[in-house]
Amino acid sequence: MPETAQLSINLATVRKQWTLIEAMEGVARAGIPAIAPWRDQIAAAGLGPAVRRFRDLGLKCSGLCRGGMFPADTAAGRRAAMDDNLRALEEAVAFDAACLVLVVGGLPPGSRDLAGARRQVEDGIAELLDHARRAAMPLAIEPLHPMYAADRACVNTMAQALDICDRLGPGLGLACDVYHVWWDPDLQAQIARAGRDRLLAFHICDWLRETKDLLLDRGMMGDGVIDIPLIRSWVEAQGFSGFHEVEIFSAGNWWMRDPDEVLATCIDRHRSVC
Amino acid sequence: MPETAQLSINLATVRKQWTLIEAMEGVARAGIPAIAPWRDQIAAAGLGPAVRRFRDLGLKCSGLCRGGMFPADTAAGRRAAMDDNLRALEEAVAFDAACLVLVVGGLPPGSRDLAGARRQVEDGIAELLDHARRAAMPLAIEPLHPMYAADRACVNTMAQALDICDRLGPGLGLACDVYHVWWDPDLQAQIARAGRDRLLAFHICDWLRETKDLLLDRGMMGDGVIDIPLIRSWVEAQGFSGFHEVEIFSAGNWWMRDPDEVLATCIDRHRSVC
Repeated sequence: MPETAQLSINLATVRKQWTLIEAMEGVARAGIPAIAPWRDQIAAAGLGPAVRRFRDLGLKCSGLCRGGMFPADTAAGRRAAMDDNLRALEEAVAFDAACLVLVVGGLPPGSRDLAGARRQVEDGIAELLDHARRAAMPLAIEPLHPMYAADRACVNTMAQALDICDRLGPGLGLACDVYHVWWDPDLQAQIARAGRDRLLAFHICDWLRETKDLLLDRGMMGDGVIDIPLIRSWVEAQGFSGFHEVEIFSAGNWWMRDPDEVLATCIDRHRSVC
Repeated sequence: MPETAQLSINLATVRKQWTLIEAMEGVARAGIPAIAPWRDQIAAAGLGPAVRRFRDLGLKCSGLCRGGMFPADTAAGRRAAMDDNLRALEEAVAFDAACLVLVVGGLPPGSRDLAGARRQVEDGIAELLDHARRAAMPLAIEPLHPMYAADRACVNTMAQALDICDRLGPGLGLACDVYHVWWDPDLQAQIARAGRDRLLAFHICDWLRETKDLLLDRGMMGDGVIDIPLIRSWVEAQGFSGFHEVEIFSAGNWWMRDPDEVLATCIDRHRSVC
């Protein structure tokens, strides 16, 4: 098995340097077999041309980013979010994605009703799940780091995501991103609770000890404090054999570098420190 | 009961504007009955003069900030941390503090061994607790937001802190700071689990939706997304009747304002939105 066989690149990692088409070609050129595209990148390229190039290059899709963002302060807002999620579902199917990743959304503007937002999230996932099951597209709740609870995702732990999975049933699992969950004292137990069937995606990057920005200062694997091999061993103990998807938002560092060099570094670090 | 009767000011809130003595005088002048001093402020003033002025002003101490920072990469480093904690304990006694607040420390530099750091924390608390019991000074573990797990505190949830309390026994409780725990789906249950005897401190401020800095961008109560009255109702349901300690690190806003105005705003917001 080539050393890149389990590697996937979330295209956010090179989004400032490359268009979707350029990024897919760069990933293929690097010998990396899979990507996770973002919907704004797909929209810019056009879904048809994007999928054709994706197929021509022989790539796989470890997940489509992203559905979610369910809470809104009006019924019309929630309806619009659901309509958008249905389009996301279609795009995930078009890319034959391993899953549609859900970043579930935070508090509606002006709201302090965290419990209410969480109910809206669960209602939204339940509705989307009906459609996703018919499309045979797994939905992956991505618990986001608690520092995003207000503005991006009010599902913030594996346990909380799995409680939702338990209640809503088949077709729903989670994306385990080490950046979001590495701190969780309950992580090993919750990965075991998830089990193979609900571990739909595994995302890697690193937490920099001196993080300078809440959103755009993720580290390359090996440059931070996360024991990635340990967490990998926990997901693999459940039988997870999917892609290791590198997802790095890095305004001040990796987004400023030559993207071919970024991919080469991903390959090197994946081999040496993951 | 005057409207400020339950209010305390953590002196970090005005640390850029005032020395310890100035801050205590400002707090007393505002009719606020209590403070939480920081040890660097005490060191700058001198413990003796600080305590004398504190007593002359008739203030109370809702907690001394801070002990902790237990993990180190050498035995000598851990010993030095313990020695420093014993001095913190003496200062807490001198101020007749409601508790000595523990910010337990994160990963030693260069380490990725989170479980090991957590063991060091528990060992350190256990050792300090022997001394604290003899001094009749309660120790309050402050679970810090998960975004501080690497560099400040690897105890990151109420549940994790209470697990330690369960194992180590009497004389140990926690400081519940809404900034650190507001996102926790398990918060209400863990506050109930803590119960009156282990809820040693209640800290308030707010989480700004657009937080610009991981450490120094806390909001004034009412300016962010935390439902403070709800969390207050949960601690009061356990019988908590201690101080509401305002602790705001705010390099870009509140630290740049007239400190008397800051205190007036604390009083106003405590009355109107907490």
